[in-house]
Amino acid sequence: MPSYTAPTKDQQFVLHDVLNVSASDIPGYEDLDRDTTGAILEESAKIAEQVMTPLNAVGDKQGCTLENGVVRTPEGFKAAFDEVRAGGWTALDCDPEYGGQGLPYLVATAVGEQFSAANIAFNMYAGLTHGAYSAIHAHGSDEQKAKYLPKMVTCDWTGTMNLTEPHCGTDLGLMRTKAEPQDDGTYKISGQKIFISAGDHDLSENVIHLVLAKIPGGPEGIKGVSLFIVPKFIVKDDGSLGERNGVSVGNIEEKMGIHGNSTCVMNYDEATGFLLGDMHKGMRAMFTMMNEARLGVGLQGFAQAEVAYQNAVEYAKDRLQGRDVTGVKNPDGPADPLIVHPDIRRNLMDQKSFIEGARAFIYWGAQMLDQAHGNEDKDADGLVSLLTPVIKGYLTDKGFDYCVAAQQVYGGHGYIEEWGMSQFARDARITMIYEGANGVQALDLVGRKLATDGGKHVMAFFELVKTFCKENGEDEALADFVGPLKAASKDLQAAGMYFMQNGMKNPNNALAGSYDFMHMFGLVCLGLMWGRMAKAAHAKLAEGTGDAAFYETKLATARYFMARQLPMTGTHLRRIETGADTVMALDAEQF
Amino acid sequence: MPSYTAPTKDQQFVLHDVLNVSASDIPGYEDLDRDTTGAILEESAKIAEQVMTPLNAVGDKQGCTLENGVVRTPEGFKAAFDEVRAGGWTALDCDPEYGGQGLPYLVATAVGEQFSAANIAFNMYAGLTHGAYSAIHAHGSDEQKAKYLPKMVTCDWTGTMNLTEPHCGTDLGLMRTKAEPQDDGTYKISGQKIFISAGDHDLSENVIHLVLAKIPGGPEGIKGVSLFIVPKFIVKDDGSLGERNGVSVGNIEEKMGIHGNSTCVMNYDEATGFLLGDMHKGMRAMFTMMNEARLGVGLQGFAQAEVAYQNAVEYAKDRLQGRDVTGVKNPDGPADPLIVHPDIRRNLMDQKSFIEGARAFIYWGAQMLDQAHGNEDKDADGLVSLLTPVIKGYLTDKGFDYCVAAQQVYGGHGYIEEWGMSQFARDARITMIYEGANGVQALDLVGRKLATDGGKHVMAFFELVKTFCKENGEDEALADFVGPLKAASKDLQAAGMYFMQNGMKNPNNALAGSYDFMHMFGLVCLGLMWGRMAKAAHAKLAEGTGDAAFYETKLATARYFMARQLPMTGTHLRRIETGADTVMALDAEQF
Repeated sequence: MPSYTAPTKDQQFVLHDVLNVSASDIPGYEDLDRDTTGAILEESAKIAEQVMTPLNAVGDKQGCTLENGVVRTPEGFKAAFDEVRAGGWTALDCDPEYGGQGLPYLVATAVGEQFSAANIAFNMYAGLTHGAYSAIHAHGSDEQKAKYLPKMVTCDWTGTMNLTEPHCGTDLGLMRTKAEPQDDGTYKISGQKIFISAGDHDLSENVIHLVLAKIPGGPEGIKGVSLFIVPKFIVKDDGSLGERNGVSVGNIEEKMGIHGNSTCVMNYDEATGFLLGDMHKGMRAMFTMMNEARLGVGLQGFAQAEVAYQNAVEYAKDRLQGRDVTGVKNPDGPADPLIVHPDIRRNLMDQKSFIEGARAFIYWGAQMLDQAHGNEDKDADGLVSLLTPVIKGYLTDKGFDYCVAAQQVYGGHGYIEEWGMSQFARDARITMIYEGANGVQALDLVGRKLATDGGKHVMAFFELVKTFCKENGEDEALADFVGPLKAASKDLQAAGMYFMQNGMKNPNNALAGSYDFMHMFGLVCLGLMWGRMAKAAHAKLAEGTGDAAFYETKLATARYFMARQLPMTGTHLRRIETGADTVMALDAEQF
Repeated sequence: MPSYTAPTKDQQFVLHDVLNVSASDIPGYEDLDRDTTGAILEESAKIAEQVMTPLNAVGDKQGCTLENGVVRTPEGFKAAFDEVRAGGWTALDCDPEYGGQGLPYLVATAVGEQFSAANIAFNMYAGLTHGAYSAIHAHGSDEQKAKYLPKMVTCDWTGTMNLTEPHCGTDLGLMRTKAEPQDDGTYKISGQKIFISAGDHDLSENVIHLVLAKIPGGPEGIKGVSLFIVPKFIVKDDGSLGERNGVSVGNIEEKMGIHGNSTCVMNYDEATGFLLGDMHKGMRAMFTMMNEARLGVGLQGFAQAEVAYQNAVEYAKDRLQGRDVTGVKNPDGPADPLIVHPDIRRNLMDQKSFIEGARAFIYWGAQMLDQAHGNEDKDADGLVSLLTPVIKGYLTDKGFDYCVAAQQVYGGHGYIEEWGMSQFARDARITMIYEGANGVQALDLVGRKLATDGGKHVMAFFELVKTFCKENGEDEALADFVGPLKAASKDLQAAGMYFMQNGMKNPNNALAGSYDFMHMFGLVCLGLMWGRMAKAAHAKLAEGTGDAAFYETKLATARYFMARQLPMTGTHLRRIETGADTVMALDAEQF
């Protein structure tokens, strides 16, 4: 059975040595000293390790069941959910006005890393609720906020997001769910929604569905979509629960993974809905939460790789198989541990250098979101919007790949469900798909975000890299890191230049390279993170404070990343520069 | 529900236009004219499409069950197995002396592609039997061959291979299963074997287990391992079945995929075994079948990608979502089909260019095996031995990757089991592990095969590429293909040179690059195959015979491969040339 140990030391390293959070002027950051975040992360670690981890395999094996219209979650989920709620873990970054703790999003991200690693399917119940909370918080009337938010902050009531229909996912303009206006100002919602995570279950008293639907007579396509609050049980004015609404579970989907989460087909049959935000502006309302939601999925992808990696390392240290070709390492045993073998190390170092780079990247993204919201910083908002598809797409693609790589360390045992490595890969697979499939992230990045505000934000990113390289290029100790980062950033700029010069005459020249671009952007971001982490580790070593071996490990891992991972930007650039011709050459029937 | 259509036209193209099999002097090839192979492949296609494909999802859903010591396969498997047996499909390349059809291995490979694509789990029952057949055929006494082979050729009796034990897979020297010699010349076999594919089931009258075990007092480690025939029911001298042997199923493993195949824990409790081949030479006996078995797994990996691709293409043509940015393609519909979108095409072209290249590669390998055996050609044997880990490792890694890529085309539907795309990925995952995990393939390639016979075979491979480039470099029509192939081959040679120059002083410098080397070798092999396919397609177009659109499609796909896939050799080389330092930098406890 796999285990999980929250990597609090690594988390603290990023928060304090790299991001230096307590020196920031972002509101709320002034309280984030090392002791405070340390105390939070130690407490959340207990929940992750002792409450959530033991239920991960249980959830996978039992799944959720639908009987007589009632959804049951796996054994132990309810008690664990109550414990998490009671500890205030669902309220971390929520508004104190509605019972939240008002902590920065960055803190919720660090805690979320632990929870997502421990049990992604379980953690989604609170995660989806948080998304719905954010939507109501941003777009609800004062009355709506007062009515729904306090109960959602505590997860007495959970939330869902209803977008997809059988015939449309990415292209929501094709939506058929209808919202008929009623005389009392409410709407009757009718239609079918699919892939509704946490759609129904036995963990909470009520489920607050946020549903996209079209009001008849409104604009065609995506511009005629509105957002509605559709509670499972209507909430009366005194806050108590009233009649059951016209929403029911049609089916629970059998999925490749995240079995512990109830993914439902939801049928709305003249259900009472309450307009949230402006009429026909439903997509805009959804988009305001998109950055946060997509960062959350990127977090899940890398967190699954992290827990898979931890177990692969343990297995590689324990399993005796073969001998070190350069000399026996375990002379008293029948064989040496797997970890002596260079290709096992190559595999583990790939995982390790990705995971630690990804953590820094996503924490940095969370910090930018806090800066954007807390200090109303439009530049930070623009930069994090640019990087959001990279975080979502790159971290989930690689997160899945490295779950598979960790599984591979186990050999045949990796394929047997009992060992749990298959589950990490199966669970992580969804992160490449939901909240916008990764091809859509690439499209968002290249087709939209690059050109936003006249390309200002991508220029700002390159400026950041350039400044880092300039400031540290003369430092001999950092030369190992600055050189490769500069080269990779040059590749990325060349790709951007190619798009500018060739995308005008044919947009397909840009779009055919969008996926490679997203990945090379991810590599450069991780390169920048490793540069910063190397710098921080060097500074600590020079100070002579702290755990020298810990910082030496960071430097060695940074060197690995620079030597073995970052040069991949070269291949991405070469592919991109071949343009659309070979990609678009065939007619559909030639495939 | 996914479908499968055997790609007979593509198969025929490789057999005749590229490999020109009927002009070969390999025994048996003289009969392989286009009509003959066409007739075989059309018939096998019916079995694959109509008998095996419909059982693929059934097998996944039902799996195998163990009750009171009896293993049951999924509904319909027995009737289908009988139909396959009755059609002679299990006997294709078996020795006519024992009831086989005596066809070349290449023909069995082409048929095996269809069967493995249609239902990998089902096809393994016959596949494992074929492996055991080959071992007995190569190493058995005349009496043993007469006793077992006729029934195994028809799969009245199936076979298994028992290597792995709980504490050892790759490192079989640690084996604990014992074989105690008896006065009558038999042995009493005791021990536990795990991961035994097709270990027991209800498809055949008898199961002939081939079991590796140690005779007490023999040499230590791997040199003291012998191979035994251990029938489930002892076969009497008259060929009838006698008493039940001391072998039983301890458990059926719950796996990530291939649920339709019974993967058993086998317990041997003083079971009667018959020595196969020489005492203590069990590993050598296993190795004689290794090339064939590993080619078979490479075939499975690419075949799963093929069926996944076919379904992804259909979905991409059917599913309407979004609009072509260069202009609406389906004005009468609510949206354009997915296949208009450049990133969907990029994904499908990745799959297509891999699959068709992989087919040519593995057919070429099978042809070399036929040449090695039929004409006792040691050079062919050396070359196919060199390429075997590449075929196994590269084709299964990529086969799995492209199953995942095909799944991605389906968006959320790809994650739902009902659509069947998850199964392809879950089933394909095993091919990266069994018959030697892919890291072990890379080790075999770099640590053993490169240097075999003084490096003669790798030199011969480079000579082949060089000759192709030389012969076709002046042909303007082929310039698109020769240039990239030459460059990629140069990268591969540079990597080999790096190993030679740096592996001496520290073998880890070679082994740390072994995985990258295996992949770049695979790329160059596919590059050579695409060069040959482009040449063949060009010749056909010049002749003006046949289906011009078909050959144009080959050329366009070749161009894609050269532009978008082959340049990856550059990154592999860069990684390799960084040597072992960053890979081996950490102590075990620093992970």
